Amino acid sequence: MNKKAVKIFLFLFSICLIAKAQTNYHSYVDPKIGTQGYGNVIIGPSCPFGMIKPGPDNSKTANSGYKANPKLPLIGFSQLHVSGTGGGAKYGNISVMLFASNQDEIEQSSLIKDEKVALGYYGINLIKGDINVAITTAPKTAFYKFEFKNKSEKALKIDAGAFLNEGKSLSEEEAQFFIGSEIEIISDHEVIGHNSVRGGWNAGGPYTVYFYATFDQPFENFSTWKGSTITANQKLQYNTGEKTGALLHFKKSGSSILKMKIAISFISTAKAKQNLVTEVRHWDFDQLLKETEQRWEQELSKIKIDEKAPIEHKKMFYTGLYHTLLMPVDRSGENPLWKSDLPYYDDFYAIWDTFRSSSPLLTLINSERQTAIVNSLLDIYQHDGYMPDARSGNSNGRTQGGSNADVVIADAFAKGLKGIDYNLALKAMIKNATVSPGGNEEKEGRGGLQDYLSLGYISDKYPRAGTRTVEYAYNDYCIAQLAKGLGDSTNYYCYKKQSGNWKNLWRDIENNGAKGFIMPKDSNGQWIDSISCTLNKKTKVPFDPTNNVAGECVCWWCGFFYEGSAWDYSFYVPQNIPELIKYTGGAESFKSRLDTFFNKNLYDVSNEPDFLTPNLYHWIGRPDLSSQRINEIIKKEYNSSPKGIPGNDDSGAMSSWLVFHMMGLYPNAGQNYYLINSPILKESLIKLENNKSFKIIAKNLSSKNSYIKSATLNNKPFTHTWLTHNELVNGGVLVLEMSDKAGDWGKNVVPPTQE
Amino acid sequence: MNKKAVKIFLFLFSICLIAKAQTNYHSYVDPKIGTQGYGNVIIGPSCPFGMIKPGPDNSKTANSGYKANPKLPLIGFSQLHVSGTGGGAKYGNISVMLFASNQDEIEQSSLIKDEKVALGYYGINLIKGDINVAITTAPKTAFYKFEFKNKSEKALKIDAGAFLNEGKSLSEEEAQFFIGSEIEIISDHEVIGHNSVRGGWNAGGPYTVYFYATFDQPFENFSTWKGSTITANQKLQYNTGEKTGALLHFKKSGSSILKMKIAISFISTAKAKQNLVTEVRHWDFDQLLKETEQRWEQELSKIKIDEKAPIEHKKMFYTGLYHTLLMPVDRSGENPLWKSDLPYYDDFYAIWDTFRSSSPLLTLINSERQTAIVNSLLDIYQHDGYMPDARSGNSNGRTQGGSNADVVIADAFAKGLKGIDYNLALKAMIKNATVSPGGNEEKEGRGGLQDYLSLGYISDKYPRAGTRTVEYAYNDYCIAQLAKGLGDSTNYYCYKKQSGNWKNLWRDIENNGAKGFIMPKDSNGQWIDSISCTLNKKTKVPFDPTNNVAGECVCWWCGFFYEGSAWDYSFYVPQNIPELIKYTGGAESFKSRLDTFFNKNLYDVSNEPDFLTPNLYHWIGRPDLSSQRINEIIKKEYNSSPKGIPGNDDSGAMSSWLVFHMMGLYPNAGQNYYLINSPILKESLIKLENNKSFKIIAKNLSSKNSYIKSATLNNKPFTHTWLTHNELVNGGVLVLEMSDKAGDWGKNVVPPTQE
Repeated sequence: MNKKAVKIFLFLFSICLIAKAQTNYHSYVDPKIGTQGYGNVIIGPSCPFGMIKPGPDNSKTANSGYKANPKLPLIGFSQLHVSGTGGGAKYGNISVMLFASNQDEIEQSSLIKDEKVALGYYGINLIKGDINVAITTAPKTAFYKFEFKNKSEKALKIDAGAFLNEGKSLSEEEAQFFIGSEIEIISDHEVIGHNSVRGGWNAGGPYTVYFYATFDQPFENFSTWKGSTITANQKLQYNTGEKTGALLHFKKSGSSILKMKIAISFISTAKAKQNLVTEVRHWDFDQLLKETEQRWEQELSKIKIDEKAPIEHKKMFYTGLYHTLLMPVDRSGENPLWKSDLPYYDDFYAIWDTFRSSSPLLTLINSERQTAIVNSLLDIYQHDGYMPDARSGNSNGRTQGGSNADVVIADAFAKGLKGIDYNLALKAMIKNATVSPGGNEEKEGRGGLQDYLSLGYISDKYPRAGTRTVEYAYNDYCIAQLAKGLGDSTNYYCYKKQSGNWKNLWRDIENNGAKGFIMPKDSNGQWIDSISCTLNKKTKVPFDPTNNVAGECVCWWCGFFYEGSAWDYSFYVPQNIPELIKYTGGAESFKSRLDTFFNKNLYDVSNEPDFLTPNLYHWIGRPDLSSQRINEIIKKEYNSSPKGIPGNDDSGAMSSWLVFHMMGLYPNAGQNYYLINSPILKESLIKLENNKSFKIIAKNLSSKNSYIKSATLNNKPFTHTWLTHNELVNGGVLVLEMSDKAGDWGKNVVPPTQE
Repeated sequence: MNKKAVKIFLFLFSICLIAKAQTNYHSYVDPKIGTQGYGNVIIGPSCPFGMIKPGPDNSKTANSGYKANPKLPLIGFSQLHVSGTGGGAKYGNISVMLFASNQDEIEQSSLIKDEKVALGYYGINLIKGDINVAITTAPKTAFYKFEFKNKSEKALKIDAGAFLNEGKSLSEEEAQFFIGSEIEIISDHEVIGHNSVRGGWNAGGPYTVYFYATFDQPFENFSTWKGSTITANQKLQYNTGEKTGALLHFKKSGSSILKMKIAISFISTAKAKQNLVTEVRHWDFDQLLKETEQRWEQELSKIKIDEKAPIEHKKMFYTGLYHTLLMPVDRSGENPLWKSDLPYYDDFYAIWDTFRSSSPLLTLINSERQTAIVNSLLDIYQHDGYMPDARSGNSNGRTQGGSNADVVIADAFAKGLKGIDYNLALKAMIKNATVSPGGNEEKEGRGGLQDYLSLGYISDKYPRAGTRTVEYAYNDYCIAQLAKGLGDSTNYYCYKKQSGNWKNLWRDIENNGAKGFIMPKDSNGQWIDSISCTLNKKTKVPFDPTNNVAGECVCWWCGFFYEGSAWDYSFYVPQNIPELIKYTGGAESFKSRLDTFFNKNLYDVSNEPDFLTPNLYHWIGRPDLSSQRINEIIKKEYNSSPKGIPGNDDSGAMSSWLVFHMMGLYPNAGQNYYLINSPILKESLIKLENNKSFKIIAKNLSSKNSYIKSATLNNKPFTHTWLTHNELVNGGVLVLEMSDKAGDWGKNVVPPTQE
């Protein structure tokens, strides 16, 4: 057996072992959660970090390709999607569609009914022709089962030119642009081809998806097309920069159930075939579905929650965990850009979203995976020059704010992840902090770095100057901590100093009773009071701390802040919250500011900048108020319905926030502790990789008893309102005594600030 | 017939027409010129601007893959090469080698004899096995004829993993790095595969070369390999990031002459096959050779020189023209990065070399081609963000000095090239001048731009600060001229002003009797007197105007100047030579400075910065001295031997310098005139595209009569020592009356300086 085969054998063997102690956590996963409203998660199946993500498409502009709207006809099932994203869609390559006709037409669509969705499974009935479609998937191979119920014509199209969100003019900045496609019928049951596209939300470079498709029945005749010309029996439509595809007609006399396996690769069609042969040798749909369920079971069973928890909570929790583990995507062995023995991950979409809670969650339950992801970031740095923020389609296309891969590294270091070259990592971080990315100052690294280094802040010359300044300051803190850990005192002091740069944009103005906000400043040091609009007819609007005006007065990416206001970002000093409290006027003012923030709906549940903010009450000795806010947020904003995620899930970022808080923990990413707050779940057991486990028990938890009265860790009184990573991974039991009233627990301690 | 077929038909038809009026200029081309010494030109065949450049390889580090050293065994014939380059080699992909054995071994080599080289033809005998190899080529398809003279075993290897200059560590900055390869035997006479590599001299990104090879005899058995493992009868070695290849054994009973056609593509193997089928349907080697000769004849016949010229001069002239037309490479329809209706050219290697005389020469004899090249530069700007300097392997990898694509644009505009969107071009140029490239400040655009914009020069913080400053100043002049032509007076005045920035590095010091040089300065405005060495043990060396110390004290790319000294670069003010003359102390000082430059061997014939310098005597009314210097240079440095090019030919840059001067013309690239000097040829006739022609006659030219005494243009006295582009393209006859003494011609005029 070769290495790959051994791996697969071990995987299948482990499935047998797991099957014996079957827990079926995966049955709590409902992939429909987040598919309506703002969530934008994929509804189709995927393996954990799976490369192929087959699923239905009924909208070329929907981020997941699919809108839960029965009036929209389905146009096909494409093989790549991203989950939970916003902005211009990406992927949607290589589309398959069924039809029950002997007439060849390129455009095919059908209304749908009887949608069935479960982990690893998507099923639907195409009303036109009465065809049932079921999909499951391996990491790189999708498996489709089609039942032609009216037993007449059985036809299938493979559209090698298909993808989402096609742009016609280069001015459409988040559109995908067609480059070329190819299709070839290589036998009476096999089709290969490729699809090359560039752009998409992250404005990435070109990428090519190769595919190999095989059927369990031969087709008896076929046509292929190029552009709008369909040609019968033409086996090859080679790539001339036009759209190509195939229309396959199967024998009526054959089984009414037709099966197709389709694998993808970013290397070649031969590699795609090899992926298929390696992953799925059989034609047993149910067997593959079971294998996929077991792949997930291995991941989901890392955290065991209270068996008596309401099904609503079980669904929310395990679906949250599932969403967190969809992306980035493991493309090891599929990197067309360089040869490396290191793992290769793509679709960091975006680290700006996921560094806060997704990465820390993965570190906790699968540090080997997180180590692989960090190593892939460093390999990208070595070969592409910078670590990415929003890498997708093999391209560091875009940054939203800071160079937050720095936080991912610092988090790994703070939590002792082994097998990472931290000296190389420090170089990668210092490159972010010292070498301007150039061009549009948005592809990678730190845009506006010249300003930051010379002025100590980003001036209004650059978009997202506020977001960038406060995030660079935290990124600098992360660099300082790593430098300190590696004994590099020069860089420690330098970046420690820079980590206070948020103060350079702190303006002593009042708004809604709070004083002091991160506000825009020009390069001469003059505060900016109003913004010149480019989008609407008002020439100037006053800069208001409650409103970023991005998307209204200036473009979405052009505001002083990204996805937030001065209210949001003036809480973002995770490196030194005590200092922030001083700046706001002390503990009382800070409490009042937080109260105003939540009470006046200035808090934005749907985007990431506020992820840590509900926990900030901890720093004024009021963890009860943190818990109260978090409980309110979860109750009001999250549920197990298709609309159960209150914003773009952002590759599971929102979901990971929920998972942590349901257990009563939340990380301050980049630092080595978790804040403790009132759990939603009575019990959570984290199975640690050192074969220990850590259990959190919320004793007497009820809707009334929602305050932590006292705590014990391994039967000893525990007065900290945070848990260090070491305390957690040493294993044990944290018992939180719940009560209907806030007590003194946590009143006299504040979480640590590492100097 | 489709468009392509019509094109081919017309081409073949035009061959017939040309064949009738056969002139055989191509027979004067000797591809051996420049293959020894410093020239580094390719010895193998190529079509004009041809994509495939098959040729022999006997050195993995030689730029052309080949050293003229009979002691070096030949290791194969690879399909891609660049001509005349220096630094780390690029390409050398997909190697073919013959052997006469039934033993399968991956490494194969043989000593060689009986090399025969002609335009479009390369022939050699492999001593081991006594195998004759002959190669000719179409634009994308190479045609090989092998004669196995000992009539025993006939075997051939295709190495899909081969390429030149392989790097093992990322610190080898100019090495190529392997990514992956694939090979597949698809019938008993067809092999396909691909080879992916990154890096090379221009530090470019990844590129993939696909191939399709077909034989006129079936092979009777085969093996393929991956890594070091050879497996008999295994048809496919799919891409797993290892090197792959095939060993093919042909029937002994078949003809002892085996033919192979191999086509390449940057899109897919199917596209490679299509290229082959489109270009070469037959198996007639001689027919293809004739076609290739005729393709060249079409180009070379644009200039007809004195039929009675010595064969030495004919060879030098037409081989020079041939070298000029090898690169960049026409890859229209082969762009894997974006879809466009515009032409696509790659291997600008580098524009820093070719903007000076190659581009102007092409404009003169094939403006349609030059227009296509300019449009491809603009298409690259639109899709990759910047016009390139040294694009190769589909990647703007590196800049040497200025953003000299600006000069190419200005030259096209000054000479009235139609079919170019000059407004777009101005945007592309202004982007160079305003948006920092970031990263290593060396990939594209203008490195050190922040300095240039704030200080008016590049400080010693940046490598090549001197080269960059003087070239940016000329680039700015080019922007100003285009802006003026388009009626954009704001940009005209802004860039006109900046075009004087060379003065900011003009230091009033004396060296070898000349006063005033471009010298290094720090960002505080302090002159730099000495350079800290990084390469040798001397810690500091004084900065000497005669020596750039790059390659000695600091790395080749790290000097204050690139490929030149302060002496060289202090002549580089092509935008305003009268002002330069003032700065040097007036006409007498300038003459003395030029005399010293040439007499003391400070002039560097082997690199491009001095290309215009011999002509500078024109500006002090001494064109006779320009002519004298040029004559001396050509006589001493150029000839028709293999060592006949005195430096790296740089994609034909040196050769184009020679071609112009042999006719008695030389352009000041970016401006609309040609300086006139004593020709080497008695007559040159340029066939213009408007069906007119321009003839230059050097009446009474002899080794003695080497001075222009007087001139007439179309029978009227002509006192200018330059010819405007309009004067030239209006057609006519320029008669230069030659004499053995310098007369008054040109004493009282100086070439124009466009404000």
